[in-house]
Amino acid sequence: MIKVGIIGAGRIGKVHMESIVTRVHDAVVKTVADPFMNEETEAFVRRMGVENVTRDYHDILNDPEIQAVLICSSTDTHSEISLEAIKAGKHIFCEKPIDHDLEKIAAVIEALKGTGLKYQVGFNRRFDHNFMAVRKAVEEGRIGRTEIIKITSRDPEPPSIDYVKVSGGMFLDMTIHDFDMVRYLSGCEAVKVYAEGANLVDPRIGEAGDVDTAVITLQMEDGSIAVIDNSRRASYGYDQRVEVFGSDGMVAVGNDTDSTAVLSNASGVTAEKPQFFFLQRYMDAYGREVSEFIDAIVNDKETPLGVVDGLKPVVMGLAAQKSLREGRPVLLSEIM
Amino acid sequence: MIKVGIIGAGRIGKVHMESIVTRVHDAVVKTVADPFMNEETEAFVRRMGVENVTRDYHDILNDPEIQAVLICSSTDTHSEISLEAIKAGKHIFCEKPIDHDLEKIAAVIEALKGTGLKYQVGFNRRFDHNFMAVRKAVEEGRIGRTEIIKITSRDPEPPSIDYVKVSGGMFLDMTIHDFDMVRYLSGCEAVKVYAEGANLVDPRIGEAGDVDTAVITLQMEDGSIAVIDNSRRASYGYDQRVEVFGSDGMVAVGNDTDSTAVLSNASGVTAEKPQFFFLQRYMDAYGREVSEFIDAIVNDKETPLGVVDGLKPVVMGLAAQKSLREGRPVLLSEIM
Amino acid sequence: MIKVGIIGAGRIGKVHMESIVTRVHDAVVKTVADPFMNEETEAFVRRMGVENVTRDYHDILNDPEIQAVLICSSTDTHSEISLEAIKAGKHIFCEKPIDHDLEKIAAVIEALKGTGLKYQVGFNRRFDHNFMAVRKAVEEGRIGRTEIIKITSRDPEPPSIDYVKVSGGMFLDMTIHDFDMVRYLSGCEAVKVYAEGANLVDPRIGEAGDVDTAVITLQMEDGSIAVIDNSRRASYGYDQRVEVFGSDGMVAVGNDTDSTAVLSNASGVTAEKPQFFFLQRYMDAYGREVSEFIDAIVNDKETPLGVVDGLKPVVMGLAAQKSLREGRPVLLSEIM
Amino acid sequence: MIKVGIIGAGRIGKVHMESIVTRVHDAVVKTVADPFMNEETEAFVRRMGVENVTRDYHDILNDPEIQAVLICSSTDTHSEISLEAIKAGKHIFCEKPIDHDLEKIAAVIEALKGTGLKYQVGFNRRFDHNFMAVRKAVEEGRIGRTEIIKITSRDPEPPSIDYVKVSGGMFLDMTIHDFDMVRYLSGCEAVKVYAEGANLVDPRIGEAGDVDTAVITLQMEDGSIAVIDNSRRASYGYDQRVEVFGSDGMVAVGNDTDSTAVLSNASGVTAEKPQFFFLQRYMDAYGREVSEFIDAIVNDKETPLGVVDGLKPVVMGLAAQKSLREGRPVLLSEIM
Repeated sequence: MIKVGIIGAGRIGKVHMESIVTRVHDAVVKTVADPFMNEETEAFVRRMGVENVTRDYHDILNDPEIQAVLICSSTDTHSEISLEAIKAGKHIFCEKPIDHDLEKIAAVIEALKGTGLKYQVGFNRRFDHNFMAVRKAVEEGRIGRTEIIKITSRDPEPPSIDYVKVSGGMFLDMTIHDFDMVRYLSGCEAVKVYAEGANLVDPRIGEAGDVDTAVITLQMEDGSIAVIDNSRRASYGYDQRVEVFGSDGMVAVGNDTDSTAVLSNASGVTAEKPQFFFLQRYMDAYGREVSEFIDAIVNDKETPLGVVDGLKPVVMGLAAQKSLREGRPVLLSEIM
Repeated sequence: MIKVGIIGAGRIGKVHMESIVTRVHDAVVKTVADPFMNEETEAFVRRMGVENVTRDYHDILNDPEIQAVLICSSTDTHSEISLEAIKAGKHIFCEKPIDHDLEKIAAVIEALKGTGLKYQVGFNRRFDHNFMAVRKAVEEGRIGRTEIIKITSRDPEPPSIDYVKVSGGMFLDMTIHDFDMVRYLSGCEAVKVYAEGANLVDPRIGEAGDVDTAVITLQMEDGSIAVIDNSRRASYGYDQRVEVFGSDGMVAVGNDTDSTAVLSNASGVTAEKPQFFFLQRYMDAYGREVSEFIDAIVNDKETPLGVVDGLKPVVMGLAAQKSLREGRPVLLSEIM
Repeated sequence: MIKVGIIGAGRIGKVHMESIVTRVHDAVVKTVADPFMNEETEAFVRRMGVENVTRDYHDILNDPEIQAVLICSSTDTHSEISLEAIKAGKHIFCEKPIDHDLEKIAAVIEALKGTGLKYQVGFNRRFDHNFMAVRKAVEEGRIGRTEIIKITSRDPEPPSIDYVKVSGGMFLDMTIHDFDMVRYLSGCEAVKVYAEGANLVDPRIGEAGDVDTAVITLQMEDGSIAVIDNSRRASYGYDQRVEVFGSDGMVAVGNDTDSTAVLSNASGVTAEKPQFFFLQRYMDAYGREVSEFIDAIVNDKETPLGVVDGLKPVVMGLAAQKSLREGRPVLLSEIM
Repeated sequence: MIKVGIIGAGRIGKVHMESIVTRVHDAVVKTVADPFMNEETEAFVRRMGVENVTRDYHDILNDPEIQAVLICSSTDTHSEISLEAIKAGKHIFCEKPIDHDLEKIAAVIEALKGTGLKYQVGFNRRFDHNFMAVRKAVEEGRIGRTEIIKITSRDPEPPSIDYVKVSGGMFLDMTIHDFDMVRYLSGCEAVKVYAEGANLVDPRIGEAGDVDTAVITLQMEDGSIAVIDNSRRASYGYDQRVEVFGSDGMVAVGNDTDSTAVLSNASGVTAEKPQFFFLQRYMDAYGREVSEFIDAIVNDKETPLGVVDGLKPVVMGLAAQKSLREGRPVLLSEIM
């Protein structure tokens, strides 16, 4: 039985706590740390059967019984806590992104070397049933050689302006998931990025120096082309679709809905909207990623995606930012 | 070039006229007869390039140049005009049903014997692209042995009460198409019929002694079971679906729409309604049936569905009526 | 915290055990009883954190700490154990059907009177996300007055012949779920049943005196018509669809699939098959039904479906059997 | 009755001939000219009821009875014949593109000035039922302000290498339709183009200096972003989809199929492939465009798309070529 500590008891920390309790039978959450721990959160943590609650995550790092930590704190603390946890000899599951600064990620990569510790980055979408089905079809050669990858990724509503300001920009905050998806689906690296962006959803996003609508084109190492379209606001809900086109066919996935119900009446034939947002759509995926992290520890296997998989999408995001800023395609080699 | 006369210039007569002009290149409509011929209809007929217009269909029967007639007059005249046309040596395309009286249909069958004349009944749905695809799958053995046949057939709105009164009842007026479809899709005859009916759409239909909602179950000769559900009013349009289930699979067809457009917004994901009614949905099928009739004449082939195919659905309809009246399943052998 | 005993540790007993552990936070399984308890089952039970394992369910009934029992034993024991459990003052969740003998069910109804005990029957499909969406649409009046109810319910493969022989016949074993569904979706009782059945899947089923293919028509109290089609074998998987048609529209649900993946290639455009069988399709529903049972105890509410809801589908099943045997529609009043 | 001459009796010339005969009742094809007129073609032309056949299109231009010409000859003759036809006072329907040389198109625009002659360019897709439905939704404001336009346009198979060599390149030969579609759907002009292209389908296409796979991003005047993805070979058929995303919703259209038939079996749930190629998919659209051209003459209206609509997509195509060549986004103002 693996004892786990969770650092950060915000939304995503709670999701992982619940997953471990209900789905991961060979792990138990021993301690939860959050500097802003309040009564409500503590009540939730207790309901989940967690033994200890603390404001100081060092209580977790210093606990020799705890073998693994889940870093769910704010982005700016990920790389530092990673380094401390490595020093403390803990296996690490770290929410994405590890950092926006490539040097800080490089330091984590460096620190991990030779430790034998497991490190997994929280690109949860890799564990979504739909995207896994696409990857499986590609891997099995059912579409032949990959030629065009298309990802549509649109949020139902923009985050708060305060969040936008500290988010690192849409490409590092939102598109980063899609950059990871391009790598996951294709099993291939990007070479060049061109980003076209616009501020159409909320003028305050533009005033904060960010875009809210974008189309990003990527040239891949194998000659194929990927294209991502993003919006911070889709009136009909969280739009998460993927299509991979190849020499022998195409595989595509649409959105999930709460039911297959279709109402036909004088107004048309109406199906349900996509599930509202990531907590609905990816709840199962969150469970699966943590389950596989624990499994990697228990069975001493590679984690399904490691620290380098945390680095690459940041490089792609930085290249996209540079492309938008300079109005030209940018090679990834210019960033690395 | 086959010269054709059309008897009856109502809605369906006009449809066939237009089909011959635009689609059937080896036939030409020489004369159109209608006892209620008016200025508007005559203008339409002239625009179609038809030479002669008359109120008396005998002008057609007596014209030695005319080889084939399309009987599109009111139902009660079909069998009599058929008999006269056979006597006049004309090939006959007769709108469904030939008659509601089995003896009158038998007289037509009798009269045809030995004449070598072509006779086709207007069950247009056999020429619909969707139902043809289902038949093809069944015929090619793609679903194995047929076990369950399901037909949904719902009109967008009920006919006028005046029409209901002279229609012969829903089973002979509307379900008759579905009875033909059961035979067409299965390539098999029904043995027994059980009809459950209700008057839910318009009380005046009930007052006229008819039902407007029904579910009819048929036991087939090969042991399979067919079921038809009918309504005189579907708020979302003309609902024409079919499903054939067999030992190795199922083939099903849905409705046609004017476009594949789907609108996603805060209210849901909305596709178009089915096409409004039979003139929209079956326009192509009308063209194809007449085209095949002419082809049977030109190439001296069997018509795709003959006078016996006009008889059987009437027997099924009469059995359904008896079933509803007597509250029990009725064998077709009780009717024949 | 409600302490629960589970009687019967077969497939469905295990499903409920797991649901309580992972989803029902205010209940705990204290004891599991099974006369055929073996090592493998005991290991499963222990893994679920259950305290006691026994071969004798009386250990559960006699345990004053246990407030509620889940009866998951073989059908022929349901009513007797129900009576004993009522005597022992336990709340009861009983798998369907309570019994095939109406008098035995009546005895349970009688015994429950005045006890204040909760009783819930395991018609799990009422808790399926799709069927709940249909019921919601009907209840909210979105399709107007209900006119036609259609249920397709086909298993992927027939049970063993040994099971068929003791199953009570397809109508009581399989269609019983659909009979419940008719009542659930419509909120209305059936008046008359007509069953058309056939033995097409496996001749041994016919030799055992049963059918494997059927279409059952029901006249409902409100004048609407319901129709169920069943097969014991659908080559493409578990086919569970429902459609309710009314004066203002239609609501329909299709099957669930493991993903939304669609593969387009030279062979066509292929989506996934329906999920294989009930354990896949209804896993969530099983969790929800037990959750609501516990909730009814904790909050002293009505269970979502009570003992009478266990009685009615049996009456409908017996009427369908009689209809098939006698070749005529049968009134439910003939059975009750 | 408008007398029409058709210049060029290849595939598309024949399509227009047939459309006029079967669908355009106020026009008649008097003469067909083709320098390579052979017996087979002449037979076809005669069957269509055309009076005259010639190898020299000047016979058409010199015929005072002929009011309108359809220019269906090879692309390199379009602008010259247009100029001659204008001089001869004929209304002109010209297949796309008018030319690949902007100055030659400018000459046609210049020559038309003040003549009052109708000029229509053959961007047939504007008359497709699906794309018309999208345009209608956009125009009616049903998706709010347009933010992202996505066009998928893939051919089932590449043209011959000989054709590729004289085609002007994929962007001017194939994408040109999509450039027109962007303008049509948005009602807005492009400002900037970035093209990413690859040679993945057939190495001989690359050797001929062309690409066969591409993703083209366009910045539009209103700030929205359009993206086109092209392939010369989709194994599953002609893939023609469009999606317009806006502030209040999204409207999307899929492919047309020959029927709605869906086969469910142990392999999955398989629908039909898209219709094979443009002659199947756009047959109705071809009829509609010619019909509207004749209508514009008869009723002295604007043609639905004029000579400037022929110019703009060429500019966009030239910008895409330059973008691909120079590896940078190109402003349309650099081309004009």
